[in-house]
Amino acid sequence: MDIIKPRTLSGFMELLPSKQIQFERMVQILRDTYSSYGFAPLDTPAIEDAQILLAKGGGETEKQIYRFQKGDSDLALRFDLTVPLAKYVALHCNDLAFPFRRFQISKVYRGERAQRGRFREFYQADIDIIGDGKLDILNEAEIPAIIYNVFRGFGLKRFQIRVNNRKILNGFYAMMDLSEKSGDIMRSVDKLDKIGAEKVKAILMGEECGLSEMQADEILKFIAISGTNAEVIAALEGYAGRNETFDLGLSELKAVTANLAAFGVPEENFAVDLTIARGLDYYTGTVYETTLLDHPEIGSVCSGGRYDNLAGYYIDKQLPGVGISIGLTRLFYVLDEQNLLNPALPSAPADALVLPMTPEPGPAIALAQALRSEGIKVQLYGEQKKFKQKMAYANKLGVPFAVLLGEDEIAEGVCSVKNMVTGEQVKLAPAEAAAHIRAALENNGPIILEK
Amino acid sequence: MDIIKPRTLSGFMELLPSKQIQFERMVQILRDTYSSYGFAPLDTPAIEDAQILLAKGGGETEKQIYRFQKGDSDLALRFDLTVPLAKYVALHCNDLAFPFRRFQISKVYRGERAQRGRFREFYQADIDIIGDGKLDILNEAEIPAIIYNVFRGFGLKRFQIRVNNRKILNGFYAMMDLSEKSGDIMRSVDKLDKIGAEKVKAILMGEECGLSEMQADEILKFIAISGTNAEVIAALEGYAGRNETFDLGLSELKAVTANLAAFGVPEENFAVDLTIARGLDYYTGTVYETTLLDHPEIGSVCSGGRYDNLAGYYIDKQLPGVGISIGLTRLFYVLDEQNLLNPALPSAPADALVLPMTPEPGPAIALAQALRSEGIKVQLYGEQKKFKQKMAYANKLGVPFAVLLGEDEIAEGVCSVKNMVTGEQVKLAPAEAAAHIRAALENNGPIILEK
Repeated sequence: MDIIKPRTLSGFMELLPSKQIQFERMVQILRDTYSSYGFAPLDTPAIEDAQILLAKGGGETEKQIYRFQKGDSDLALRFDLTVPLAKYVALHCNDLAFPFRRFQISKVYRGERAQRGRFREFYQADIDIIGDGKLDILNEAEIPAIIYNVFRGFGLKRFQIRVNNRKILNGFYAMMDLSEKSGDIMRSVDKLDKIGAEKVKAILMGEECGLSEMQADEILKFIAISGTNAEVIAALEGYAGRNETFDLGLSELKAVTANLAAFGVPEENFAVDLTIARGLDYYTGTVYETTLLDHPEIGSVCSGGRYDNLAGYYIDKQLPGVGISIGLTRLFYVLDEQNLLNPALPSAPADALVLPMTPEPGPAIALAQALRSEGIKVQLYGEQKKFKQKMAYANKLGVPFAVLLGEDEIAEGVCSVKNMVTGEQVKLAPAEAAAHIRAALENNGPIILEK
Repeated sequence: MDIIKPRTLSGFMELLPSKQIQFERMVQILRDTYSSYGFAPLDTPAIEDAQILLAKGGGETEKQIYRFQKGDSDLALRFDLTVPLAKYVALHCNDLAFPFRRFQISKVYRGERAQRGRFREFYQADIDIIGDGKLDILNEAEIPAIIYNVFRGFGLKRFQIRVNNRKILNGFYAMMDLSEKSGDIMRSVDKLDKIGAEKVKAILMGEECGLSEMQADEILKFIAISGTNAEVIAALEGYAGRNETFDLGLSELKAVTANLAAFGVPEENFAVDLTIARGLDYYTGTVYETTLLDHPEIGSVCSGGRYDNLAGYYIDKQLPGVGISIGLTRLFYVLDEQNLLNPALPSAPADALVLPMTPEPGPAIALAQALRSEGIKVQLYGEQKKFKQKMAYANKLGVPFAVLLGEDEIAEGVCSVKNMVTGEQVKLAPAEAAAHIRAALENNGPIILEK
């Protein structure tokens, strides 16, 4: 037979079992946390009609998309979870109760240039709350509070959710008579973290924005406002009373800040940050970015915001919403690369490997079933191999316990439980063995261990 | 703005939230059960190099596949989970411990003609055990035992896992000097359920198979062997001693049957059935099909078997295995269509909707967090609406409990818990409220309720 060399496409993450188990653990925390806040799971097709997916059209999206024909159909793979959500809500709006809260943890596809840490197929883990006509500001505090709980659930402590409000920025630019240029200005200011104030100033005074030096200085002074959240808000109060949009944005920001505290998010994990603008035009109020404090070079690992019109391309109905998205594949890649995955957590497919030492498998089958009924993940080893080979297999699998069952154990109604790390071996009845194994696997800490 | 009518492609399942929640519950049982037997989760890319995916090539597969170019790359969407598994095992074989046990619950893509109950994107829920060179017969009993536990976990009772062994069939045809025609014969016999014995006999005596009437009768007599498993095996013993392959197959079948009993699978849920052959050529020993006894018209909902060479297209290494696949999307579709989904199980995204009755959200936020910490899924309702509208929302959402928090409740340190089905309303402290809600949601039966 001709052999074709196997390979996985570049830009596509494919994990070995131990890594996959750690990845799944993060997904489980996401699912559990999102569910605990009453978000409904959603699962839309990976393939959509290309016309529908590209209704908004244009730009980078169109270049990166996987688009193809099948028969007469013009199809494309989704490149995010927001456009499919918009389609879903527009299509099913009579069947949904608004506010509609959904989470979706699914793969999306972008055929961008493959490079280290960049993926063409990657998971996004999104939550959105969609209102019918209106949506209360409370939701804009709840969304980052949920993200706080997700990240804490992972074990992360050194992260910061940075919050701003586009109305404050738009209002400020209106005060300066720069409304028409606000898009260009925000895009320039967005580069502050990467290129520094001097270069941003040069861009602001360059051809595209065309600001005077005084205007540029005024903008840089404004976005440089920093300090505790109370200090930033106090400084912003100094600009109040001159523009309605600004004042509305400030009152929203104050409400979000106050409610975030009520949701139990400590001040060290969120910060009002006037440099956050988010590139996308459709954000209209609160915006979020999340950074890992020890890894600012990664940029935002979780971003989103408030928008006023989710599905205008599909339906003549005002559907405001607020949402946030975690780039899960990239986050996992970075955490793993930084060696932050907790090695004390079991990453073998089974907690225990049952090794029958007699030819007749009946007693080992019964033992495996008994351990499973106590919540232990058990692999029954059925191969006819020598003892040494069996133990070598247990080692390669990385299983924390081997459970040996020979004639003596069967006669005594016990099994020999061997801790594969310490080498300690004890004879226990099945229920005791399960308790022994459970105790060793509990309280080994979170998924992520920061250094 | 021009509006594009939203739609979801035909042949693609997209569920409303309540259905999606029921679907996820089935997935969770699959994950938990597969994990409890020590299978590692696997997640391969949906897109693969088309040359690799089609290494085996030919036939229906090639016509149905979604294949497309991106830049210079010839890409395709996976059409099953077995080919990606073969690629994965070949590619990573030095890093894997054999036997390698993995489960994968993922979507696959087949662009076949859309028709009712047929899907172009659907979930398969697969388990496989791959050996390096050898694999013990015990695994061939464990695989259907796991499927038994999955189906019982769903709540199904009226199902039957039908087991046969290709060596018995091949050996039998060899005894009759019909080895060369065994493929054609098996494909004809496979139609027995659908078209009946007379028509199968006609096909056997037709041009393609070219058997004599005596041969056709002998075959039909053989596959008509039925009765209890012990009776079928006893009848097969009558053919023993004349062909090695047959004798090997019979001894394997006896081992599988005996071990299935040891795994606790009751005789009513599995049957030796000589009519099962499975179309695919690569099965070499035990084969399985699973039917819902009250819905034989659906055909097999879970099929698989033993193969001797998983990855011969990718690696020069003998990798025998045994696996089984549940067509989950179709199974869910059928169960839902037959109204077998248990309506007593909550299918709302939240267990409780917390309704603040005061302008200040703080106390309601604290109450929602307190209930969540007790394991209740809670949506906090933040909209400024009239009481009637709030209750209408709770009803449309289908949430089992509304939890009201007004001035009186806040003063008393309680909340009013309203059962949305019975209308009963009680004032309880948060921890009691959580216990009250939990008690009502527990023990409402399995996912599937058979009639």
